[in-house]
Amino acid sequence: MKYSLERSYEILDRTPAVLQALLSGLPDDWIMPNEGPETFSPYDVVGHLIHGEATDWTARAKMILEFGPARTFERWNRTAMYEESNGKTMQQLLDTFSAARKKNMDWFRGLNLAEADLDKKGMHPVLGEVTLRNLLATWVAHDLTHIAQITRVMAKQYKEEMGPWPEFFRILSF
Amino acid sequence: MKYSLERSYEILDRTPAVLQALLSGLPDDWIMPNEGPETFSPYDVVGHLIHGEATDWTARAKMILEFGPARTFERWNRTAMYEESNGKTMQQLLDTFSAARKKNMDWFRGLNLAEADLDKKGMHPVLGEVTLRNLLATWVAHDLTHIAQITRVMAKQYKEEMGPWPEFFRILSF
Repeated sequence: MKYSLERSYEILDRTPAVLQALLSGLPDDWIMPNEGPETFSPYDVVGHLIHGEATDWTARAKMILEFGPARTFERWNRTAMYEESNGKTMQQLLDTFSAARKKNMDWFRGLNLAEADLDKKGMHPVLGEVTLRNLLATWVAHDLTHIAQITRVMAKQYKEEMGPWPEFFRILSF
Repeated sequence: MKYSLERSYEILDRTPAVLQALLSGLPDDWIMPNEGPETFSPYDVVGHLIHGEATDWTARAKMILEFGPARTFERWNRTAMYEESNGKTMQQLLDTFSAARKKNMDWFRGLNLAEADLDKKGMHPVLGEVTLRNLLATWVAHDLTHIAQITRVMAKQYKEEMGPWPEFFRILSF
């Protein structure tokens, strides 16, 4: 599918409500386990998404629009939430994410990007040259894959209790 | 995590709202593509979940409670929705699923299952002997893994437009 602002708004706008529907009110049994060392719990993922809103997507888009590939993006701290989420409830994180995303979407729409802007280039510290289109499509896919991750991690909590059934669930072995 | 009725209600009750938040109002570009031959689109998944409500989970639970392992479960038609969803909009499917799940949850709660009931046995046509606990845990994991599948399929629609970024997204290669 070709990237378009409209198609991306449709996902980015709804992610906070999806996460609220999926995670609000759940006990720690569902939201705190992860998939092993250096993997994220559902709780971790929401903190990671908040960090992304604050430091990644909009900052990198601004850098592309202002400096092009002449300035390299900051590296993203993928584990900042271990400290930043500390002491916060899941509901606080969900509400923080909802507010941050709303603010960013207002900013994003306010850019009034033209199709030609999407070809503008930036410099990623590892991947090298990327376009604004690449960055914005990745913002969308990042939301969706983290929802996939959250639900996979949750499903795994019942892997033992499913008896022989996990052999029909390829995803539980990922 | 140990299976409990309460933990399972927490997920089964909310799945319709999660799917509404995730899929309601999206154009075909997001909901109709799949991952290749014999894979499901988001639209297919919702039809598959409806079929499960009608023919799988409650029917198998009833069979365990009434007949134990003496009667083997019917095989589940995993592709029934290709016919059953035909001509229906995504919103119709979402609403049908919400109503079917609500009805099944009322029935499920009304069973007033005791812990000992969860050890009751049934006979799966492929997997052999399973317990009611296995079946009920699988119902929960089935919801969650299909939400993971839906969001993975959606994310893949932007794989090309992400430029070099997919190498950071292991899930896009599943």
